[in-house]
Amino acid sequence: MNNPFAKRFDGVAGSAIRDIFKLLNVPGMISFAGGNPSDAALENELIAEISRDVLLRDGKKLLQYGATEGWPPYRAETARFLREEIGIAVEESQLLPTAGSTQAIDLLLKALIDEGDTVLVEGPSFLGTLQAMKLYGANTVSAPMDEDGLVLDRLEDAIRRHKPKLLYTVPNFQNPTGVTLASDRRRAIAAMAEQYNFIVAEDDPYRGLRYHGAPRPSIFSFDETDRVVYLTSFSKLISPGLRVGAAVTRDADLLRKLTVGKQSTDVHTPGITQAIVAEYLGRGLLAPHIGRICDRYRVQLSHMLDALDAFPEGVRATRPEGGLFVWVELPAGYDAVKLLPKAVEKGVAYVPGTHFYAGGGHENTLRLNFSNSEPHVIDKGMDILKTVVKEG
Amino acid sequence: MNNPFAKRFDGVAGSAIRDIFKLLNVPGMISFAGGNPSDAALENELIAEISRDVLLRDGKKLLQYGATEGWPPYRAETARFLREEIGIAVEESQLLPTAGSTQAIDLLLKALIDEGDTVLVEGPSFLGTLQAMKLYGANTVSAPMDEDGLVLDRLEDAIRRHKPKLLYTVPNFQNPTGVTLASDRRRAIAAMAEQYNFIVAEDDPYRGLRYHGAPRPSIFSFDETDRVVYLTSFSKLISPGLRVGAAVTRDADLLRKLTVGKQSTDVHTPGITQAIVAEYLGRGLLAPHIGRICDRYRVQLSHMLDALDAFPEGVRATRPEGGLFVWVELPAGYDAVKLLPKAVEKGVAYVPGTHFYAGGGHENTLRLNFSNSEPHVIDKGMDILKTVVKEG
Repeated sequence: MNNPFAKRFDGVAGSAIRDIFKLLNVPGMISFAGGNPSDAALENELIAEISRDVLLRDGKKLLQYGATEGWPPYRAETARFLREEIGIAVEESQLLPTAGSTQAIDLLLKALIDEGDTVLVEGPSFLGTLQAMKLYGANTVSAPMDEDGLVLDRLEDAIRRHKPKLLYTVPNFQNPTGVTLASDRRRAIAAMAEQYNFIVAEDDPYRGLRYHGAPRPSIFSFDETDRVVYLTSFSKLISPGLRVGAAVTRDADLLRKLTVGKQSTDVHTPGITQAIVAEYLGRGLLAPHIGRICDRYRVQLSHMLDALDAFPEGVRATRPEGGLFVWVELPAGYDAVKLLPKAVEKGVAYVPGTHFYAGGGHENTLRLNFSNSEPHVIDKGMDILKTVVKEG
Repeated sequence: MNNPFAKRFDGVAGSAIRDIFKLLNVPGMISFAGGNPSDAALENELIAEISRDVLLRDGKKLLQYGATEGWPPYRAETARFLREEIGIAVEESQLLPTAGSTQAIDLLLKALIDEGDTVLVEGPSFLGTLQAMKLYGANTVSAPMDEDGLVLDRLEDAIRRHKPKLLYTVPNFQNPTGVTLASDRRRAIAAMAEQYNFIVAEDDPYRGLRYHGAPRPSIFSFDETDRVVYLTSFSKLISPGLRVGAAVTRDADLLRKLTVGKQSTDVHTPGITQAIVAEYLGRGLLAPHIGRICDRYRVQLSHMLDALDAFPEGVRATRPEGGLFVWVELPAGYDAVKLLPKAVEKGVAYVPGTHFYAGGGHENTLRLNFSNSEPHVIDKGMDILKTVVKEG
């Protein structure tokens, strides 16, 4: 077959990353590469019973075609979760169920972005989102971060120069850096969205996973002109394999575009997965579960940070208050891409940081995940990684 | 918010159809409008047990992130289904799980279509697909059908004139007409795909629902140059609410593009829905279930066709050998769009045929669904519809 593919695929197909993720299945490999929750956090016996219960009770509806707008109990429970746990004043009519926040981002790009339109992202940003932006032909521009997230004056410069249609940000325990956006910056970003007329995609899947410090208000809560779209997901809180999240917006026209876009993509999120999450929330299971997994991840994070303290001088790491990731900067001249095969050979995988930059570069950086390894495994893996870095 | 939306939404948002579907929830409304299986065909108690079983057995994996390429047992069982039930020689490595065939079409368009590229469709064609094509900026061109499907010389004319990148066809019990493509035409279409170098999307969700006559070989089975992509779905056979189907291609490059496209859309189809279908197939439940639902739908189809025989002279209807739909042509001058409010007022809903034509027109046509109404309800609804047509 010699039919050419659509131009949107030119330069897309990060095989580097896909090859890294294949390593996760190599027996004995210590993986700091993925973004997986701990297997211990996946309550399959409980969810087996919930799944049976909802199918026995509502199965005729759950197995039939459903509305793109979602399974009503899922909409109601998620709106309640957003109001009570996230502190966002929304009604169920203001949210659309999605396949994790991945689909929400895809639908937002579909609704807003013509080829060549500018999207601002954090530098570095989540590589899955960067790939989605490429597929929509977006002009992706990075704005720099410091230890409190996006740097406001640099962000405003970029906005003035590039006139973005969309700003994509992960405000809590960012992927890949683990950095949290300061509260005053959140307020300022909501104000900039109004002043310069762009949409903010506030992607917040990690918010519940806070191990230290106090929660910050969402950007959405500072938004008085309906320009912030809040993306939530139950992937890190209940299960990524269920593929359930939601896009939340007070702009009815935008919600309608997201809905029509979803309709011709998958018609609707499966009834059964929405119903499982709705029932899980309705039974009040989420808060105690989050308590338990935070206790687990807090210990794992602390093992990883302690190990990093023993790395050679000049190695810098973020100190996240939550989430799944720590970001490491090796001294200038180090190349995490070139070190990876050596690390893998010794049994440790990670993701080189360059893949998280829209424009590449930053070869001395890497992302480490701590949620999917037990503390003693983290100790062992970090010891190996230290040796690899030392040997350069 | 006054941000403009992406141009792809210009002229998209078929509110007419969405409004019709809202009627399905009006109590007492007899709906010939949707494409829903009978509620009686949805085995929620059985699927409740299967769901529990697979989660107890494999839940740690099903609830974790999975590969975009799919849950291995789903791939294996679906490949076996394709070989044994559909007669298609494929390996599991040649298929990608999708959210029904809707997502498969979306991913195919994403992989192949640049703005302005031509896609050939049957006239009339499935309106969901037509909307997806609009969102990709495709130049959608209809080729006419007769009672044996696409008319070959007219199709070849259109191919020569428009140089399509893709031909979309529903060969068995087409949506919306119920028409089945003749076997010799299938062979000819596979040959044209080679001669004129385009891809065929063979969308075949209704194949199992044959009530009369013998199965025809797939277009895929005549394809010697890997230009036919076969789309299957378990929506009409097991449950639409599960949102599980697959795209099948022997072209590894194309499969890779579909996979990368899916990755940034939803990462993967939920583990639980794939596992339910895999288990259902693995236990050998599909063949007897299809036998039972065909017995049911055969009776319903016959009630609808009998009722149509009593319609005023000049009313013509297709006589499908399977599927979910009958297509009706009223005499010239009738307008099914204008008749709809009258029918709805008397308690019957259908979809006007004009919505299934890429270029509109054909206001004297309508689509009737018979799978979601019991025989006595069909009798009653068709009686009402006959009166509405008579009163013009």
